[in-house]
Amino acid sequence: MSSSPSESHTEILAADECWKYLHSSYIGRLAVISGAAPEIFPVNFMTIGTTVVFRTAPGTKLRALLSGAAVAFETDGLNAYSTEVWSVVVKGTPGSFDGDPASLREGGPDREPWQPGLKEHLVQITPSEVSGRRFAVTPRTRWWPPQDFSADWI
Amino acid sequence: MSSSPSESHTEILAADECWKYLHSSYIGRLAVISGAAPEIFPVNFMTIGTTVVFRTAPGTKLRALLSGAAVAFETDGLNAYSTEVWSVVVKGTPGSFDGDPASLREGGPDREPWQPGLKEHLVQITPSEVSGRRFAVTPRTRWWPPQDFSADWI
Repeated sequence: MSSSPSESHTEILAADECWKYLHSSYIGRLAVISGAAPEIFPVNFMTIGTTVVFRTAPGTKLRALLSGAAVAFETDGLNAYSTEVWSVVVKGTPGSFDGDPASLREGGPDREPWQPGLKEHLVQITPSEVSGRRFAVTPRTRWWPPQDFSADWI
Repeated sequence: MSSSPSESHTEILAADECWKYLHSSYIGRLAVISGAAPEIFPVNFMTIGTTVVFRTAPGTKLRALLSGAAVAFETDGLNAYSTEVWSVVVKGTPGSFDGDPASLREGGPDREPWQPGLKEHLVQITPSEVSGRRFAVTPRTRWWPPQDFSADWI
């Protein structure tokens, strides 16, 4: 009895694995609601504990949209051998980052130090839900039609 | 008079450039509204003319959410030398793909041929708005804190 590719290849990630991926990433996409329509913004980010922190410029549309409304944030990537794809989604509520600026130095030597004066533009998402998936990439899933690719994601 | 990095590096893309990037990509993220909250789904996709087509599996949450509501779709990437980042956002309304299945073969030899029997699960976004940005990546913009990176995106 063989299962379908979408059944056999998709792995639901535990929370600690989701955070491992989040900690290792720095580009994601943020979905917010503007009126009756969704908007999506690419942002770069870092994690502080189990929160997601990113910067907005003053006066941007995104900043105006972040007045307490629920958001969904996603990041994804390939493993080092391009044999597996993963995606993690964080849902939660954004607020101003009011933590210790020193915590922003946790990224290690590859990440630049905290710069004074930007604190007022930092947004922090406190998650209400974190979910993630991972599945093997085969030559077939790389190209259209995605026999089991979108099905795996969704 | 020097302008700020965010002013000097960001380039607003013309519609034809946005479509060039869309035509060359196959993974994007779809933002939809579920109740009062946004949701975000990675999808793989292809373009048919100036529409975006992707597959959903029957019975998925995404499929249930796509009953005519507005969506926002984003794809992004680096150029071949990793010196520039681009992002394109398509806003529009999803519907069933009712076009000629032969059009799905347009992707060239690298894309697999249309497979019968999947048509009922294909979703097509007819854009009401397409926008895109591109900017140079410097070592500084690769890492936290993003002095001009998020500002450039937004």
